[in-house]
Amino acid sequence: MITEDLLKQIEFIKEIDKIKYIQRKTKLFNSDRKENDAEHSWHLAMMAVVLSEYSDNKIDLLKVIKMVLIHDIVEIDAGDTFLYDKEKSHDNTEEEKKCAERIFGILPEKQATEFIEVWSEFENGTSNEAKFAKSVDNLEPILQNASNNGGTWKEFEVNYKTVFEKKKVIKKGSEKLWDFTKNILNDSVKKGILAE
Amino acid sequence: MITEDLLKQIEFIKEIDKIKYIQRKTKLFNSDRKENDAEHSWHLAMMAVVLSEYSDNKIDLLKVIKMVLIHDIVEIDAGDTFLYDKEKSHDNTEEEKKCAERIFGILPEKQATEFIEVWSEFENGTSNEAKFAKSVDNLEPILQNASNNGGTWKEFEVNYKTVFEKKKVIKKGSEKLWDFTKNILNDSVKKGILAE
Repeated sequence: MITEDLLKQIEFIKEIDKIKYIQRKTKLFNSDRKENDAEHSWHLAMMAVVLSEYSDNKIDLLKVIKMVLIHDIVEIDAGDTFLYDKEKSHDNTEEEKKCAERIFGILPEKQATEFIEVWSEFENGTSNEAKFAKSVDNLEPILQNASNNGGTWKEFEVNYKTVFEKKKVIKKGSEKLWDFTKNILNDSVKKGILAE
Repeated sequence: MITEDLLKQIEFIKEIDKIKYIQRKTKLFNSDRKENDAEHSWHLAMMAVVLSEYSDNKIDLLKVIKMVLIHDIVEIDAGDTFLYDKEKSHDNTEEEKKCAERIFGILPEKQATEFIEVWSEFENGTSNEAKFAKSVDNLEPILQNASNNGGTWKEFEVNYKTVFEKKKVIKKGSEKLWDFTKNILNDSVKKGILAE
């Protein structure tokens, strides 16, 4: 007996395949190929598992993983927003909310509500889980740029101060990962791959 | 203070980026582009979250997610093994064990041991979590082939009986997902995209 709920869930599973076509600005490690949102989300989930001990706050790891797995699904409709974009804000916009309602709304009602809540919680960034999810989300492109001879820092001409200010959000989830980030940024300035 | 452990974890996070270059045989939904292992692993993690209610056995969802996130990391060294390959077995080979030890071995010892155990548990396929992880791992390409006019079924000339036998493993984790699978396979035969 195939239920209506299962059919909705399968429809959702097909719909989210589109995330594999959403290109980010950042490139893979040591590579010229841009990363897509599915690859990025997988990597963040792995980072959450591997680095969870560095969360300064008690976290429900399963919830953090759910957050990073779904955080970019709204980009299927809204497109990727770049952190250093001067015109468009990365904040939780009305447009993204509509996308969340459409895409998560494909799921059975109870599950749709749960997914929208998890996504909103991540966007708000105030819960322990959201803080740590944002730490890893912000750390990944730093690792990529540092291993890519400056990557998007060079490409979009952002300097140390801009990166430092934008990335301070890492500190909210993890002092240790923030210390590590500062080390990378200082090293990158010394190497000449991040402007002073 | 940056610890030795954190440096090992960051090295691991960089190393596993290589999974994004491992191409599978199956293609994205409604697409000609092949899927890579990172995209596949992300999709399985999403399927595990969305479909967990259909597991016939009580499962620790976090463990299932860890399994599907890491299950293909060994392919960084060993390469993708295709389910319908007539020469090379998909089973847990000595070669794959060595890969697991090398790649997970980059992590701090305690974490390396945990990851190797989770990976072995998935490969053995006997725990409740492994059974359900294998259900979603086997279901994804069926959904892709059905939406891709036959996909790898046509490309590699496999028929209904072969697919049915290979995919029976889905039943071990979920009777409902197996019923659903049988429906898709029967429909696919009717549509002429899977040989009888």
